[in-house]
Amino acid sequence: MTDRSGALTEAQVIARLREIFASSDPRIKVGIGDDAAVVAGAKIQVMTTDMAVEGVHFRTDWSNGFEIGRKATAANTADILAMGAVPDYLLVAVALTGSESMEWISDLAHGIKFEADLAGAHVVGGDVSRGDQVVISIAAFGSVETPILRSGAKPGDGIYLSSLTGWSAAGLALLKSNATVTSEVMKKALREFKSPTVDYGFDATGASSLCDISDALAIQAAQMAESSKVAFSFDLSKIEGASEFVELETLARELGIDIWRWVFAGGEDHALLATGLDLPGILVGEVIAGSGIKNLPAGVEAVTWRHFN
Amino acid sequence: MTDRSGALTEAQVIARLREIFASSDPRIKVGIGDDAAVVAGAKIQVMTTDMAVEGVHFRTDWSNGFEIGRKATAANTADILAMGAVPDYLLVAVALTGSESMEWISDLAHGIKFEADLAGAHVVGGDVSRGDQVVISIAAFGSVETPILRSGAKPGDGIYLSSLTGWSAAGLALLKSNATVTSEVMKKALREFKSPTVDYGFDATGASSLCDISDALAIQAAQMAESSKVAFSFDLSKIEGASEFVELETLARELGIDIWRWVFAGGEDHALLATGLDLPGILVGEVIAGSGIKNLPAGVEAVTWRHFN
Repeated sequence: MTDRSGALTEAQVIARLREIFASSDPRIKVGIGDDAAVVAGAKIQVMTTDMAVEGVHFRTDWSNGFEIGRKATAANTADILAMGAVPDYLLVAVALTGSESMEWISDLAHGIKFEADLAGAHVVGGDVSRGDQVVISIAAFGSVETPILRSGAKPGDGIYLSSLTGWSAAGLALLKSNATVTSEVMKKALREFKSPTVDYGFDATGASSLCDISDALAIQAAQMAESSKVAFSFDLSKIEGASEFVELETLARELGIDIWRWVFAGGEDHALLATGLDLPGILVGEVIAGSGIKNLPAGVEAVTWRHFN
Repeated sequence: MTDRSGALTEAQVIARLREIFASSDPRIKVGIGDDAAVVAGAKIQVMTTDMAVEGVHFRTDWSNGFEIGRKATAANTADILAMGAVPDYLLVAVALTGSESMEWISDLAHGIKFEADLAGAHVVGGDVSRGDQVVISIAAFGSVETPILRSGAKPGDGIYLSSLTGWSAAGLALLKSNATVTSEVMKKALREFKSPTVDYGFDATGASSLCDISDALAIQAAQMAESSKVAFSFDLSKIEGASEFVELETLARELGIDIWRWVFAGGEDHALLATGLDLPGILVGEVIAGSGIKNLPAGVEAVTWRHFN
């Protein structure tokens, strides 16, 4: 099933991807195979794109194809959730170096499909290209009645996290430390680094503002405060009370790292940050009048920019 | 406006891109800046993605940023047109190596904007990433009432091209030949290679099938014939009668290349291939019962697959 040079042809790769992404959802009128997909739309559409580059966002010696596929997809579906919207469709463009096996490509596709299924979304089209490094560029589409923006936070609102941040950074620190993975907590950290959990079940109905923690809690909170023209005041004692905090703190102590750096400056967790009253999740602070972020832990800068990566 | 290391920060690049892609279209509720864009949707949506990789789809020593931006965009908008649909929105994910100047990045963005304007589409979101080579991955969204698929060609239909194919391949051959560019015909070929013209004005209303010639006329015609379960019979004398044929043939003779290889096996022209009765464009043959492609010029194989690139 290879051409004379032994390399996989585009037709072979696409045929395999069509099988993996096949869907019988009646909203998909035309899936993979024509010039474009044709799907049932919605009155208000939400759309986003996120690109994952080998060596920058993932390493093939750290994560397998399935984990890389899940992570690249989660970065997109989390952005749809972060608008209070429902993910519907995905487009997947991939650059391959030509040295990947069909098995690795299938694993990648199965990872994308697995995360898409969790999100309730369908892969309806894509593109396969040649490149010097693997690049996975996904675009995600969702539908919503009333989008929840970053700009709606009001003084008096509580600040909520859908789940504790820092796990992905903890996993990265663990990988870099070369420590032997012995405990369940270590396994969880590694898992969250390789394929961060997106809180698809988080009910943000009634939230005044919402975003996902793709960069870092401190960065995203600062952006949200700026958009909303308010200040975000954290309450560290409340975060310390979160059910997973003790586990994460144990791991931080073992690796000699300040847990607050993971929680506030870690990034790539894809937890949701919301403001409002009586929301689910972990109450971590309060929106107040003013600007910026208040009561950050010592040593964690409230940066609102970063080098692009 | 650079950080301490002298490199552009993501925030600086994104701020510039926001300026360039700013739009006051009332259908765009939330543009660049939140987790995702929010736009007015349509009952039937058309969506596609196409990735352009440095060294594979473009070379920065052959084309400037503006031309590269146009070409990467055209590959997407042409696919929307190829469904009989109207392009509405674009998402643009770009990997940059970090050695690009803000001027080059702006040129790239202006090229994307220029082509988007021609198509009537708006850039509503994107992502900027780091990579070893420049990668431009665009996703395009359009709306349609009745999509025109590849599968609707019927015996008795005429086969139409929106414009003569082969110009992009001619431009590539010219670049490779190192010939001095002296004539208007040479300039046109180079222009079409660097930024292929998309026939946005082509009225495909009433077409029974439609696709764009992104790969090559012979490949795309074979795919369309297969999807429609018919044969495509070309009439070379009709193609020879196309108004631009003599110009292209002169250039082919100068470079010692068979013009039919450019026309049928060239690729990347983004002309539209349609079947139906009394359509605009160039009548190039007839749909007949059977399968495959008939009356290809000698020496042009009817290939339906290719290595991925």
